[in-house]
Amino acid sequence: MSKSSTVNARDVNASDVAAGATGAFMVRGETLTVQTEERVELTDITDRIVALVRASGIREGIVSLWSMHTTFAVFINESQKALHADIKRLLEMMVERDADWMHNDPAHSDCDRLNADAHLRAMLLGHSLTLQVSDGELVLGQWQRALVAELDGPRSRTLRVQMMGIS
Amino acid sequence: MSKSSTVNARDVNASDVAAGATGAFMVRGETLTVQTEERVELTDITDRIVALVRASGIREGIVSLWSMHTTFAVFINESQKALHADIKRLLEMMVERDADWMHNDPAHSDCDRLNADAHLRAMLLGHSLTLQVSDGELVLGQWQRALVAELDGPRSRTLRVQMMGIS
Amino acid sequence: MSKSSTVNARDVNASDVAAGATGAFMVRGETLTVQTEERVELTDITDRIVALVRASGIREGIVSLWSMHTTFAVFINESQKALHADIKRLLEMMVERDADWMHNDPAHSDCDRLNADAHLRAMLLGHSLTLQVSDGELVLGQWQRALVAELDGPRSRTLRVQMMGIS
Repeated sequence: MSKSSTVNARDVNASDVAAGATGAFMVRGETLTVQTEERVELTDITDRIVALVRASGIREGIVSLWSMHTTFAVFINESQKALHADIKRLLEMMVERDADWMHNDPAHSDCDRLNADAHLRAMLLGHSLTLQVSDGELVLGQWQRALVAELDGPRSRTLRVQMMGIS
Repeated sequence: MSKSSTVNARDVNASDVAAGATGAFMVRGETLTVQTEERVELTDITDRIVALVRASGIREGIVSLWSMHTTFAVFINESQKALHADIKRLLEMMVERDADWMHNDPAHSDCDRLNADAHLRAMLLGHSLTLQVSDGELVLGQWQRALVAELDGPRSRTLRVQMMGIS
Repeated sequence: MSKSSTVNARDVNASDVAAGATGAFMVRGETLTVQTEERVELTDITDRIVALVRASGIREGIVSLWSMHTTFAVFINESQKALHADIKRLLEMMVERDADWMHNDPAHSDCDRLNADAHLRAMLLGHSLTLQVSDGELVLGQWQRALVAELDGPRSRTLRVQMMGIS
């Protein structure tokens, strides 16, 4: 197992190029699919977002990442196997899977997935990110990676990616 | 008490319609009021946001939901009574109301609401959401609902709703 | 130590002015630097964001605050010394610094900062905010302040600020 973290090739220093840009406005939408293999699993989607942004032709603007699921989260952190194990452990510590959640109780809930933990964990991580685009590139710090968290897999998950700005 | 969750009538599959839309840009702002009845209370505001988006005339763009309060949160989850009870219980487990918070101590704070727990819980849930609009509709997964959390009620609360995009 | 919280001079009531604004679209980007002095430290950056928004010439739109670091968070809360002490205490309770995190273990990680706690705490607070601008002013409730959390300082930190909308 690698001990290293993924580093972004370009540590964006975008403030100068972006000051006061004006031009034609456009919106592009894409759907990104993530096939997960485990019940709880983190996946680094940064490279796929970088590619969508480059292909969009948007020079200055934003990109919204929206999980289309209640039990699938999207957030920022470093991409390193050791840290991802720590994130999973923290989620287990904060939200126990086997506590007597009402959502898992047939007397109170018609959901038979027993996934209350997944709903609560996703809520703490969040379901969306709104990132910046500058000079045609995603704005990210050197170690920042866009991660998705499968919390009730394995499943096929979708993320809607919307890019909006000046082309 | 219903055991069911609210399901969205339209599971948006919006990527095709949104690819590369251009047009006139507009911004609309609205204020939404929520009257709460309990100290801690969750309210599903999805239908009100859907209606504002439809009335805005915006076809492709974003909608920002902004809580105008420090102790009133907005976030995504399923809308089901059992799960909402679990969310309240998790908030109580993560942030105890009666711990000796400095914000509740007259020696350190001039706030007499004793609401440190409300400030800390809202911070974990978040004060805003930025959602996508595509083909004139809010982009949401089948079970995703926009919820607000009253954490120091009962009060009259306001949420600013800003829609921005191509009309 | 002051027991008081910082209050915003203008409790924005912006819905009327913003309804249906159209005009020329622009994007501006700026980089804001925060020099921190402690390992864990909260800083109120609201006044600096308010000034950037006023200088931008944007009348209706959004402003994105993006932390360029994995261990530097940005979020909303009241600005009061007692509450900030409570926030730091909650972070310590939720994510212990000295638990045996794999990210701090040389057998699994090539990071020698022993900062797993900082990564996990930042993830819970979040790395970005997308705020509204209306009538040329940041939209904030009376007690809402934009705060940044240094979680692995002291360091020089940067926040990218992108303003986008109708000038």
